[in-house]
Amino acid sequence: MPKLTDQTDEEILSLLETGQIKQYTLDRELEPLRAVQIRQQFLLSDYPDHIIDTIPYKHYSNYETATKSCCENVIGYVPVPLGLAGPLLINGSEYNVPIATTEGALVASLSRGCRAVRESGGIDSTQTYFGMTRAPLIKFSCGRAAKQAADWILEPGNFEKIRAQFESTSRFAKLKSINPKQAGKLLFLRVVAATGDAMGMNMISKGCEKMLQFLQTVDVFENMTVLSISGNYCVDKKPSAMNWINNRGYSISCDVTLKCDVIKSVLKTSAGALAELNSSKNHVGSSLAGCIGGNNAHASNIVAGIYLATGQDIAQAGTSSMAMVNMECLDRGDLYVSVTMPCIEVGTVGGGTSLAAQQNNLQLLTSAPDVNINAALLAQVVCGAVLAGEISLLSALCSGDLVKSHMQLNRAER
Amino acid sequence: MPKLTDQTDEEILSLLETGQIKQYTLDRELEPLRAVQIRQQFLLSDYPDHIIDTIPYKHYSNYETATKSCCENVIGYVPVPLGLAGPLLINGSEYNVPIATTEGALVASLSRGCRAVRESGGIDSTQTYFGMTRAPLIKFSCGRAAKQAADWILEPGNFEKIRAQFESTSRFAKLKSINPKQAGKLLFLRVVAATGDAMGMNMISKGCEKMLQFLQTVDVFENMTVLSISGNYCVDKKPSAMNWINNRGYSISCDVTLKCDVIKSVLKTSAGALAELNSSKNHVGSSLAGCIGGNNAHASNIVAGIYLATGQDIAQAGTSSMAMVNMECLDRGDLYVSVTMPCIEVGTVGGGTSLAAQQNNLQLLTSAPDVNINAALLAQVVCGAVLAGEISLLSALCSGDLVKSHMQLNRAER
Amino acid sequence: MPKLTDQTDEEILSLLETGQIKQYTLDRELEPLRAVQIRQQFLLSDYPDHIIDTIPYKHYSNYETATKSCCENVIGYVPVPLGLAGPLLINGSEYNVPIATTEGALVASLSRGCRAVRESGGIDSTQTYFGMTRAPLIKFSCGRAAKQAADWILEPGNFEKIRAQFESTSRFAKLKSINPKQAGKLLFLRVVAATGDAMGMNMISKGCEKMLQFLQTVDVFENMTVLSISGNYCVDKKPSAMNWINNRGYSISCDVTLKCDVIKSVLKTSAGALAELNSSKNHVGSSLAGCIGGNNAHASNIVAGIYLATGQDIAQAGTSSMAMVNMECLDRGDLYVSVTMPCIEVGTVGGGTSLAAQQNNLQLLTSAPDVNINAALLAQVVCGAVLAGEISLLSALCSGDLVKSHMQLNRAER
Amino acid sequence: MPKLTDQTDEEILSLLETGQIKQYTLDRELEPLRAVQIRQQFLLSDYPDHIIDTIPYKHYSNYETATKSCCENVIGYVPVPLGLAGPLLINGSEYNVPIATTEGALVASLSRGCRAVRESGGIDSTQTYFGMTRAPLIKFSCGRAAKQAADWILEPGNFEKIRAQFESTSRFAKLKSINPKQAGKLLFLRVVAATGDAMGMNMISKGCEKMLQFLQTVDVFENMTVLSISGNYCVDKKPSAMNWINNRGYSISCDVTLKCDVIKSVLKTSAGALAELNSSKNHVGSSLAGCIGGNNAHASNIVAGIYLATGQDIAQAGTSSMAMVNMECLDRGDLYVSVTMPCIEVGTVGGGTSLAAQQNNLQLLTSAPDVNINAALLAQVVCGAVLAGEISLLSALCSGDLVKSHMQLNRAER
Repeated sequence: MPKLTDQTDEEILSLLETGQIKQYTLDRELEPLRAVQIRQQFLLSDYPDHIIDTIPYKHYSNYETATKSCCENVIGYVPVPLGLAGPLLINGSEYNVPIATTEGALVASLSRGCRAVRESGGIDSTQTYFGMTRAPLIKFSCGRAAKQAADWILEPGNFEKIRAQFESTSRFAKLKSINPKQAGKLLFLRVVAATGDAMGMNMISKGCEKMLQFLQTVDVFENMTVLSISGNYCVDKKPSAMNWINNRGYSISCDVTLKCDVIKSVLKTSAGALAELNSSKNHVGSSLAGCIGGNNAHASNIVAGIYLATGQDIAQAGTSSMAMVNMECLDRGDLYVSVTMPCIEVGTVGGGTSLAAQQNNLQLLTSAPDVNINAALLAQVVCGAVLAGEISLLSALCSGDLVKSHMQLNRAER
Repeated sequence: MPKLTDQTDEEILSLLETGQIKQYTLDRELEPLRAVQIRQQFLLSDYPDHIIDTIPYKHYSNYETATKSCCENVIGYVPVPLGLAGPLLINGSEYNVPIATTEGALVASLSRGCRAVRESGGIDSTQTYFGMTRAPLIKFSCGRAAKQAADWILEPGNFEKIRAQFESTSRFAKLKSINPKQAGKLLFLRVVAATGDAMGMNMISKGCEKMLQFLQTVDVFENMTVLSISGNYCVDKKPSAMNWINNRGYSISCDVTLKCDVIKSVLKTSAGALAELNSSKNHVGSSLAGCIGGNNAHASNIVAGIYLATGQDIAQAGTSSMAMVNMECLDRGDLYVSVTMPCIEVGTVGGGTSLAAQQNNLQLLTSAPDVNINAALLAQVVCGAVLAGEISLLSALCSGDLVKSHMQLNRAER
Repeated sequence: MPKLTDQTDEEILSLLETGQIKQYTLDRELEPLRAVQIRQQFLLSDYPDHIIDTIPYKHYSNYETATKSCCENVIGYVPVPLGLAGPLLINGSEYNVPIATTEGALVASLSRGCRAVRESGGIDSTQTYFGMTRAPLIKFSCGRAAKQAADWILEPGNFEKIRAQFESTSRFAKLKSINPKQAGKLLFLRVVAATGDAMGMNMISKGCEKMLQFLQTVDVFENMTVLSISGNYCVDKKPSAMNWINNRGYSISCDVTLKCDVIKSVLKTSAGALAELNSSKNHVGSSLAGCIGGNNAHASNIVAGIYLATGQDIAQAGTSSMAMVNMECLDRGDLYVSVTMPCIEVGTVGGGTSLAAQQNNLQLLTSAPDVNINAALLAQVVCGAVLAGEISLLSALCSGDLVKSHMQLNRAER
Repeated sequence: MPKLTDQTDEEILSLLETGQIKQYTLDRELEPLRAVQIRQQFLLSDYPDHIIDTIPYKHYSNYETATKSCCENVIGYVPVPLGLAGPLLINGSEYNVPIATTEGALVASLSRGCRAVRESGGIDSTQTYFGMTRAPLIKFSCGRAAKQAADWILEPGNFEKIRAQFESTSRFAKLKSINPKQAGKLLFLRVVAATGDAMGMNMISKGCEKMLQFLQTVDVFENMTVLSISGNYCVDKKPSAMNWINNRGYSISCDVTLKCDVIKSVLKTSAGALAELNSSKNHVGSSLAGCIGGNNAHASNIVAGIYLATGQDIAQAGTSSMAMVNMECLDRGDLYVSVTMPCIEVGTVGGGTSLAAQQNNLQLLTSAPDVNINAALLAQVVCGAVLAGEISLLSALCSGDLVKSHMQLNRAER
């Protein structure tokens, strides 16, 4: 077969239709834009022209990265409006918060929250945990054999052997612990590792695979069957009490003392009203509804907005959004506010952060030349932004203007 | 003050910096691209040029809609790679599945699942529920007063009065039920309504506000305080048992019987291996991890990809991803597979679907001229695509090639 | 074989050992005490005498009822200490609260709580729901067939037909609703019924069995398989969000306004301290621990004590103990307290209430000749007692004397 | 005041009524039976005689222990029928299973399960964890201070200091770990300790109190406020994901391979039917109902029955009943069954085990002279009995005779 680059579009289409080449061959052999255009014709030949014409696909400089590591069967891209909220004052530094969203009023509301935070002296933020997790699932002949395997792993000397294997797969992966959970003959090994500035799922999966290869050489694992590199005990991308209780990714605690006059002038409400609403809605309401990790008003909006803007795995936005908001009325009308997030799954390298616009948005977080935008810092910005978003929305609810503000900013829905 | 259009960029920047105009004035008075450029200078003056230059913002035709109803403080957009999976055969029709993602291997894997479904005769899908929800939170002087209020609402004649008020706010909103939950003096009213083809949060919020205004005129509500238009008992954008048990948005059930030879040739595994993995991982593993709504392997990937491509509220992707996968081995090596999703929160009008590319992606679902891409159909495609995604990923896990395929397709992460 | 009554103990033992008679024959043919004694010899012949001698079995007047409907293989009884707390003032009437327990300090603490309630004017209690549930599990050939079956049931005319069948099994059973939940080809039917003053599990099971027999005659159910009279979607005796959200048995709301001086004199603490502890422990702590239905300090102690004393199904004490405690500081140092319990599974007839001592303890609740101790009233006493128990324990925790009081009252543990 | 023993009943009643003596004085100064009789008159003077006469209170040898450490305001006892199930074959030894219950059919059903286990070769049981927990709740001035406190505790040298303090309170208490959880300025310290053969709540509470006293002398804890010795993060007596995931008390795994012919002859069903029901009911049904820890049919019945018989804290029966049942069809019609229970909260000393009948029931577990009935062994019997109870009930459900057997054995309910 002659090189694709020497063939006409029609010829290539014919090759595709007859199955002589696969779609991914286009990406490998053609320059990106031509590959996309031919794919559009191949997949969408039955569609009216205006459909194809409306797909944004030109003026995109990242096809090479995108097709190699982020997406297959690419026919273009989806543009999501990008707004900038902030600045958000955390631990004495100011951060812009890039938000990619289609939720009207969100950026404006977040910006108001940032202002209230800033005028009250800023957020204090601490990191209480980091560890990405993956839980392979293995099976033994009986419960006793599974128990022996779990015991073997927990023996310090053996753990060191596993660590050596695990860490041989990446210079960034650092094995922290393995927590076995047994159910009869099944054994789930929740592996916890530091993964540098990568979110780390791929890195830890590689390490786990190596670990499993090694375990297969150990006597007590002789009869094990590897059912899956992941047994849903990780937990990745599913709501779970596990990550709420035992953490995943970064765990961040942020707090701020909102000043009485700021609550009045910026947020148009009072400490008492906010504290009562937080208790009634974020605690009583969420508990009545059987929420685990849902003691907040709309953390998910903020998290999704930042994740999308900065190339995080958007399928993790839901689980990363678990957050508890606590408030306490202080003397003189001030209000103590804290936000606790146990499971912020972020990275600043790898995955979607490889794309230029997304990486650029990470750089937008700060213009301070000495600030290194690493994953830990991003996690703090996420948690701080959630705090700002919470106080602004709760204030809007207190003063009853949620519907009103949505109506103004979102006229598109009937 | 002279009109903004008559002023230079420098003059406008000066007005912004001195607070004489607000950011939103730019969007109202300038043509979009100029507004964005000036905002970039205003917000990012301290940043090096290459940062600003890397923000995609030109060649975007939707600034007017975006700034009016989807985003504030817009500085550009974020392009997310768009792949097309499928076709997916549901109820006898074929659908393309547009996926916007940065998760390498996802579209390829989904396409394989679609092929297995197609070659097995397709998915059968049924809708078991629709109702969007919102739960205002009101407070009374005591539990007895709250009880009387709840009783009043449940009285059929009174419910009809509320319905009339509620439905007066939109020609699409149809009140279905109100489920009160009392906690002492607090009363949460979970309002359920049909909302046409809109996802419907704004529509139902308007209706609830009208309802509350009306209730304030009723004797037994005389002493109520409206704490919030939402009391987290809805539940919106938080993981909850509520929506898992009592549904929200669309509830869809999909099933397919995978043929033995297709499992072998396309999925490279067997019915028995898939069924065992589904039981051990999606049921045992998820239950051990305290998941509610997490009986699946990666529904969230599929849901987030479609939501992003079609302009859904991406902050709802997490809650919409609750899904249960069941499998049963049949005679002759066939495999029955079902996916149940109780809470698919989608619309085809309003919100992000107003944007041209996103709306266009909705149209990409089908080229059949007689198919109306409404919200109910979109929900079925979401659930069907989750099914296809599950069988493909679980098959990959069975044959142990997850890490391998990720490594190939995602070389960007170290 | 001659009548057992004509045979010696040795002869009967021989019959048992050779399998010629079963244990239950003893209960049917011998007078109870002799049956118990022979069974002790049969089962415990290898044990030293002092073991057998220490089993309480004499002086028990209820063997006939016990062996017929409450227990098999009876070798005696277990005596549990019975204390009387109260009186507890609810809706203007006073109730004694019988508590069978081995938890030192519980009755004393509960009595203190009752005193605080009484001196504050008493509890106001309302019932917000009643319905016992049972959820048969049926299976169809495919999801669509399951959907059609669910639709058939929800059709009002068909529901009436089911009701007629269901209610034909008992003059007390009243069918309230059937809530279908589908998962692929599986269908769970959560049947809700009023069951008079019986807790009602047996009554509703009979009704469900009749319902299933009837459904088998209906066309759309032709191919159904009844997998189980209960599919765990009821939910009986397992912790669940289902019952917390959708109720089971009696749902009761109790509240009281504790007077400032009573909080000080009786409870030795303050409204502010109690409210802060309730928020931090019963809401923040429970939410962090992933509790659903656990927004209380020790409802389970009270519920188990009353259930045991009054012959309730003690295996339901855990699920019945789901409770949320809310507190709000009022003017002048008063404290509003409410307790919400959605799932109090009680009866005053049937089961363990047939036993004389247990039935007598029900009568102990009140000496008012005009008060009918029915299940609804018992449920209110349970909820009210939980409230009294909560304020007393939380007060003890506030003043730091929990360990101290346990040490005094429970010297037996080292 | 003359000694109570020198006064008539009427004189003592008068002292009680005028408040000159408290109820507990009766227990301290009078012989038990007289104390109980006078209390009955004092508390129940308005009741008809037959009520008082029906309270069992004579022939009870344990009043001294009962009034000192198990109950206050004692007016008698509640007799609960005691049946003996078994023998249950675990790890090669046979155990009787004492069950105190009013649930007809339970003991008979359990005995059938024990027989199936026995005839299949017995259960294999392993202990995977032990640790009782208590989580004091402390408060700091801000989140950063709480973080520093948590860090201090986790520092190995500091942990050793805490351990020394903690273990000084009891020769049995062994501190295993402290897991801090922070929510803003609040800090929950989940303390895990071995507690010998006591269930251990009191023991660990004493140790925690000592720990807190010590921490107050440490600089970084200078400004802490102890809000409560328990912050509900333990978790004690509330349903929680915490204990399900992170264990409490004893974690036991039991399994057995049921033989094909035993399933047929004893259980009247087949491996396939049992496995399908277990999957559909205990996994699918429980997950749909939002159960955490509820992957079983009726563990609670067994646990409550044993707990009551052996003097365990009956208010812990609900949480201790969390259990997962797994089944797998093997070759030749055999069935692998496992039960996993993470949170069996039992002891063989202290609390209700101090009472003679309850302690005696512990001794009834085995007549083997060399078997030490300690807490670990009791936990294994609990888990094994749950397994036996599950297979018997599930078999009854498979063959559709649940309602029938209840009807026969429980004729008391209408």
